Amino acid sequence: MMISLGEIAELVEGRLSGDPLLPITGTATIRDAIAGQITLVDKQKLIPQLLKSSASAAIVAEGIEPSGLPFITVGDVHRSFAKITTYFQPPRARGVAGISPRAEIHETASIGEGCDIHSDATIGEGVVIGKRSIIHPGVRIMSGCRIGDDVTIFPNTVLYENTVVGDRSILHAGTVIGGYGFGYETVEGAHRLSAQLGNVEIGHDVEIGSGTTIDRGTYGPTTIGDGTKIDNLVMIAHNCRIGRHNIICSQVGIAGSCLTGDYVIMAGQVGIRDHITIGERAIIGAQAGVMSDVPAGAHYLGSPAMPEREQMHIFAAEARLPEMRRQLKALQRTVDELVAALNGKSQQDAA
Amino acid sequence: MMISLGEIAELVEGRLSGDPLLPITGTATIRDAIAGQITLVDKQKLIPQLLKSSASAAIVAEGIEPSGLPFITVGDVHRSFAKITTYFQPPRARGVAGISPRAEIHETASIGEGCDIHSDATIGEGVVIGKRSIIHPGVRIMSGCRIGDDVTIFPNTVLYENTVVGDRSILHAGTVIGGYGFGYETVEGAHRLSAQLGNVEIGHDVEIGSGTTIDRGTYGPTTIGDGTKIDNLVMIAHNCRIGRHNIICSQVGIAGSCLTGDYVIMAGQVGIRDHITIGERAIIGAQAGVMSDVPAGAHYLGSPAMPEREQMHIFAAEARLPEMRRQLKALQRTVDELVAALNGKSQQDAA
Amino acid sequence: MMISLGEIAELVEGRLSGDPLLPITGTATIRDAIAGQITLVDKQKLIPQLLKSSASAAIVAEGIEPSGLPFITVGDVHRSFAKITTYFQPPRARGVAGISPRAEIHETASIGEGCDIHSDATIGEGVVIGKRSIIHPGVRIMSGCRIGDDVTIFPNTVLYENTVVGDRSILHAGTVIGGYGFGYETVEGAHRLSAQLGNVEIGHDVEIGSGTTIDRGTYGPTTIGDGTKIDNLVMIAHNCRIGRHNIICSQVGIAGSCLTGDYVIMAGQVGIRDHITIGERAIIGAQAGVMSDVPAGAHYLGSPAMPEREQMHIFAAEARLPEMRRQLKALQRTVDELVAALNGKSQQDAA
Repeated sequence: MMISLGEIAELVEGRLSGDPLLPITGTATIRDAIAGQITLVDKQKLIPQLLKSSASAAIVAEGIEPSGLPFITVGDVHRSFAKITTYFQPPRARGVAGISPRAEIHETASIGEGCDIHSDATIGEGVVIGKRSIIHPGVRIMSGCRIGDDVTIFPNTVLYENTVVGDRSILHAGTVIGGYGFGYETVEGAHRLSAQLGNVEIGHDVEIGSGTTIDRGTYGPTTIGDGTKIDNLVMIAHNCRIGRHNIICSQVGIAGSCLTGDYVIMAGQVGIRDHITIGERAIIGAQAGVMSDVPAGAHYLGSPAMPEREQMHIFAAEARLPEMRRQLKALQRTVDELVAALNGKSQQDAA
Repeated sequence: MMISLGEIAELVEGRLSGDPLLPITGTATIRDAIAGQITLVDKQKLIPQLLKSSASAAIVAEGIEPSGLPFITVGDVHRSFAKITTYFQPPRARGVAGISPRAEIHETASIGEGCDIHSDATIGEGVVIGKRSIIHPGVRIMSGCRIGDDVTIFPNTVLYENTVVGDRSILHAGTVIGGYGFGYETVEGAHRLSAQLGNVEIGHDVEIGSGTTIDRGTYGPTTIGDGTKIDNLVMIAHNCRIGRHNIICSQVGIAGSCLTGDYVIMAGQVGIRDHITIGERAIIGAQAGVMSDVPAGAHYLGSPAMPEREQMHIFAAEARLPEMRRQLKALQRTVDELVAALNGKSQQDAA
Repeated sequence: MMISLGEIAELVEGRLSGDPLLPITGTATIRDAIAGQITLVDKQKLIPQLLKSSASAAIVAEGIEPSGLPFITVGDVHRSFAKITTYFQPPRARGVAGISPRAEIHETASIGEGCDIHSDATIGEGVVIGKRSIIHPGVRIMSGCRIGDDVTIFPNTVLYENTVVGDRSILHAGTVIGGYGFGYETVEGAHRLSAQLGNVEIGHDVEIGSGTTIDRGTYGPTTIGDGTKIDNLVMIAHNCRIGRHNIICSQVGIAGSCLTGDYVIMAGQVGIRDHITIGERAIIGAQAGVMSDVPAGAHYLGSPAMPEREQMHIFAAEARLPEMRRQLKALQRTVDELVAALNGKSQQDAA
């Protein structure tokens, strides 16, 4: 497949600097681009890398003007680049999957119009699914779940009883929503499981990454707010209330009954102990271990976590610890000598 | 649905203080309760929260006497509250699922009476399943596995060859039991996989959380002791021997050939290096990295982990590190001046 | 089943010291061996443990000569021991599974000769699978994937569109390859998902552990090099380029766009921030948090990670921190007294 640079400029409604007849054979990022391909440059600092690459042209943001190769200036580099990439690799036509005869749908379930329910999906008693939702193969939706419109649930994901999923949410493969909360009381040497009468309620426009697990509440719901994005292999425990538009990166673990405000960000591998409240727009750095409440807007780091500013001072001091230790020893020696000398002198004086 | 407070007191065999005719419409925890609902108070310190809530009544533990709203005193608050919650949300009748014609069961497999084997479950050659066990949709039980009585295996869980599961154990969705151990020998630049001849043996009354993985032993079994509870996304490597009644929280990783005694507790995101022994009733704090054996009854914290008491002193000192660094610098200056002054003085004296 | 020690020596072509007629009933590792069983000793230091065990004989490496029980000396202890173990527990005949009528295979998919496609597997549009590959039950291979020869994909694993898997690679149960990358741009308060036009390309002889997730690239591929071994519950984010023959242990998390050289080793629970380059043969210690590039051959430890040597000094100093703090306080007191004394003396002198 081939298209001229001028046609690409038209496709993305961009401003072309260079030869409109130059043939372009595909797209690639800077590190992969070969001759004939167009790449993208969204930051000024990438220009040296671009000039060393084999790319034949670039889509650039306003104000970026690489010399030495033709470029197309656009308002939204990523949108435009995606459009061109899609031109070269058009997605397969989705086809009309509809409801597979190999899906198992309980007679009491209600499926909205335009849904795709793929083979080997299992839809339980009393489940309600809205319009145009896609349920991939091997998804298990247990009794009483309610799924909104335009939801996508990727293969082999499991929703336990009474899970709620809002409109336009995306659940990636292998996620497990609504398993039992990990709460026990020890009675005569055995751990007795707590009540498991709650469920999980996921808002609208939520995305949940592959292999993530969210446990049901004890008596009420565990909730995920609208617009929140959760990465792969995250664990959210029973009774948590996650706010709206949170960003929760991979392998984060949030223990039971935590609350987060809106627009909270947690970087990878963060751990939050149980019953913690995290204020809106707080940011928790990677691998932090949060042991106490975090105020709104605060940046926390470290394990145990503390305000970023304090933690950075501590990190800096830790890096100097061996030096501090040597200094302390040397100082001790000097002071010991001083004391000895002065004692000696005092004795001399006294003599 | 509605029921009077007096009827609720009878249901839970509790002692009512307040109007027996008060109508109750449902249950909720304190933070969610609306007017008409009954909530629960298991700790004295929750009374202020209760009084600020909209709950119309409370189930309370012996000795807790909130003023200003009716309450029912019971011996076991959580049992009683669960009973009332279940009254308002009766579970769906389980129905008699029996053995689904859509399950694939090898002709040599033996299924005990009263089992439910759901659709799309796969039961391999020579598998033996006890009585009244429930195998949910999409569970894969490979050849030679032995499953006890009253076991529940939630959807899409995978048991590799020869896995053993004891009576009354619960395996949550998406767990993987018996995958290959991660052991390699490097031969001529390539990593050669070790023998994978062992299996996994899970005791009685064990619970395993969603997405957890337990690898098979090299030549013999990896074992999980009776009564041990394992949370979501935990990794237990080949040849481990986990004791009885352990509590292993989410995202813990235990490397190969570790041993734990009975009643060990590991908090979230703990990592244990290979070939470590952890004594009975030891407690390992969240995110700890255990690099050496832990004695029975010890509390360990930190990475590298050490006894909690020592680690708490170190954490406290770390928080003061920037201050210590300033103090050290100031002290150095003072001592330098002292030395200079004394040298000057000595020279004066000598002069 | 029983076999004489002499026959075992013949089976493994080893050198027997002891009674060739001794009957052997099975194999077990030292800690499990009972009378009648043969065990293995691959390190000199295990001899005391061997002598305390109930094993009746041992397979030993050249140069290890336990006294007090018969032994067989061999070149490769583990190979030999695996051979004997397999003699006692012969694997089930694999049978000719072929293509199950219960698998769902798209009419445009191409399946090589000698493949086993088990029941409930789903093979999408245009998928190409090489020769002798085994696709277990419940595996979902979405459209456009290309799978090599002699590949094994264990149950319930999911491959998103256009995933590539090289020859002889093994994917364990419940892994998810090719899910969306976790990249967002915040537009008017909502997080907008980045382009998801790339895929995942896995090389030859790669092994991927249970529950691991690898996300697709934004525009191009996320790649895993030939011979690389990845343990359970690992997360590899979009656009990463993992080198050849890497060893990536359990619960490691690698953020977007990282590069690793060949023969890199990462121990358990390591976290790598985005856009990091790790040089060939670098080793990253358990739970390390890598925030900057790591040179080839370096050993890094700690969070934030730094060269092992420096980090070990810091760990040592941290362990002494409470002592340093006491020393610093005492020193401060001494110096304060010195200063006071000297000031007093000066005043005396001046008087």
